[in-house]
Amino acid sequence: MSFVDENKDARVLLVGLPEVVESELKRLGASTGDRIQVKPAPEVVAMDEAPASALRGKRKSSMRLAIDAVKNQDAHACVSAGNTGALMAISRFVLKMLPGIERPAIASFLPTLRGHTCMLDLGANVDCTADHLLQFAVMGSSLISAVDHIDRPSIGLLNIGEEEIKGNEVVKQAAELLRNSGLNFYGNIEGTDIYKGTTDVIVCDGFVGNVALKTSEGLAQMLAGYLREEFGRNLFTQISGAMAWPVINAFRRRVDHRRYNGASLLGLKGIVVKSHGSADSFGFRCAIERAYEEARHDVLRRISDRMATINRKAA
Amino acid sequence: MSFVDENKDARVLLVGLPEVVESELKRLGASTGDRIQVKPAPEVVAMDEAPASALRGKRKSSMRLAIDAVKNQDAHACVSAGNTGALMAISRFVLKMLPGIERPAIASFLPTLRGHTCMLDLGANVDCTADHLLQFAVMGSSLISAVDHIDRPSIGLLNIGEEEIKGNEVVKQAAELLRNSGLNFYGNIEGTDIYKGTTDVIVCDGFVGNVALKTSEGLAQMLAGYLREEFGRNLFTQISGAMAWPVINAFRRRVDHRRYNGASLLGLKGIVVKSHGSADSFGFRCAIERAYEEARHDVLRRISDRMATINRKAA
Repeated sequence: MSFVDENKDARVLLVGLPEVVESELKRLGASTGDRIQVKPAPEVVAMDEAPASALRGKRKSSMRLAIDAVKNQDAHACVSAGNTGALMAISRFVLKMLPGIERPAIASFLPTLRGHTCMLDLGANVDCTADHLLQFAVMGSSLISAVDHIDRPSIGLLNIGEEEIKGNEVVKQAAELLRNSGLNFYGNIEGTDIYKGTTDVIVCDGFVGNVALKTSEGLAQMLAGYLREEFGRNLFTQISGAMAWPVINAFRRRVDHRRYNGASLLGLKGIVVKSHGSADSFGFRCAIERAYEEARHDVLRRISDRMATINRKAA
Repeated sequence: MSFVDENKDARVLLVGLPEVVESELKRLGASTGDRIQVKPAPEVVAMDEAPASALRGKRKSSMRLAIDAVKNQDAHACVSAGNTGALMAISRFVLKMLPGIERPAIASFLPTLRGHTCMLDLGANVDCTADHLLQFAVMGSSLISAVDHIDRPSIGLLNIGEEEIKGNEVVKQAAELLRNSGLNFYGNIEGTDIYKGTTDVIVCDGFVGNVALKTSEGLAQMLAGYLREEFGRNLFTQISGAMAWPVINAFRRRVDHRRYNGASLLGLKGIVVKSHGSADSFGFRCAIERAYEEARHDVLRRISDRMATINRKAA
């Protein structure tokens, strides 16, 4: 069942080169109407284009027009599988930041032994201050409150040891800010805690978060490659693989990264969700659902309110 | 076959509380002699002891006496499964740094799709300069040259994108230094490249490296937990698990983390290898073998030589 069929109150605005959008709609046997509309765009941002060039040079790109639609309240959210840097730059320029938030962050959900956790920043900011990390905590906890209905999500600060004395200077200062923030600060956590699900939210700078995420991708690929090789080794292993197929399949469903597709660009005055560039239709649907949930549960207002509370407390 | 049986030129000096060492030897049916000797130590460093207190207060600890043995050339290398911070502090104080190296780094081997890679720093240094990263590259490439017999190991700089413009300031400067170093610098790599085995050596600051390593541990534990759950679900899955047992077992052997036990504390004027605190006898044997290989292939001289070449070049 498609996203549009399942969510009767949702409307989709498809922004792109008209011939491409129309041929895709035709291929899927879908037609435009009240709930599926097309907004033609004369150009697109290339995947390898410099963000600055996309921002200045392509004011009629599908990406720009989609974000403009959010700005003009023609859409509640924008979902894109395009160039991340350009999406970030254009979103920031067009939508501007929420009050009290200095920089946007990329947040994503990751599977854990207990369910899932929300981790940010995953690569938008490579040099963060302690204040930025505090703002990430506010944004992540607001997102979890909105979509998981948890009043005070627990927040872990990614560090290299649980002791308070550990970590670099920025992380130590951020821990101090978080302790006094009124947020539900769990304390320092280590890399092993991410997939244990120790906290609802994990805060880190974008360099560390990006490395952790991509290291995980690489490890999962290597393990999957090894498993394939071992099951493919000879006739006996192939038969045992066929026997174990329902189990392997159930396992694969549980760790299906497509279910976690859709990273939120948080901190903007508008909802923007980035899909993986290589997502299939199932993965892209998950990204659309993320945007839909954020709009439905008013993530932006929650971030603003929580940030205002903290700033009043600090003043 | 034990390490001592297999390596006829190796001698082992066991440093510890005499009653503990002797009862262990008795349990294993081993006896002291020419190749297994005991050096009694009256005290031990606790796992949670502050490094400074271990360094100043415990001058007769097993850890201190083992490192003293390296310093006094009674041993070619020290292997410890103890407190990492204390091991680092005592090693640095007793052994001192090799010329041109400012800080010790923790290096470890990780499995990849192609074999293995050596990654450093894994947590000794949380705030690194570009010069430190260059020194890590020298140490890692010397280690790989020694134990893998590769003349010019390729070096990847862990970053959040392959493009030269990406990354934080320290990483950008380090890339510049590496390009002019004469080392075989591959360029920036991403987290996904670690387990792909894109380069022989991976250089990063200790905060990032520690998070990447521990995130990997956590992910592997989660995936193993999921697999166990799926195979344990009901009688049918248990039977298919039994059928697939040889395959699963071959897979487990390939990713057995015990084979990668033994992290090298590099940059010191002596060989020190840190075993995981929870290593079993197989894991600890791997750590001993790492130390043995480093001593046999003269890692210290290689690091000094390579560092001197680079410093002459820079001067």
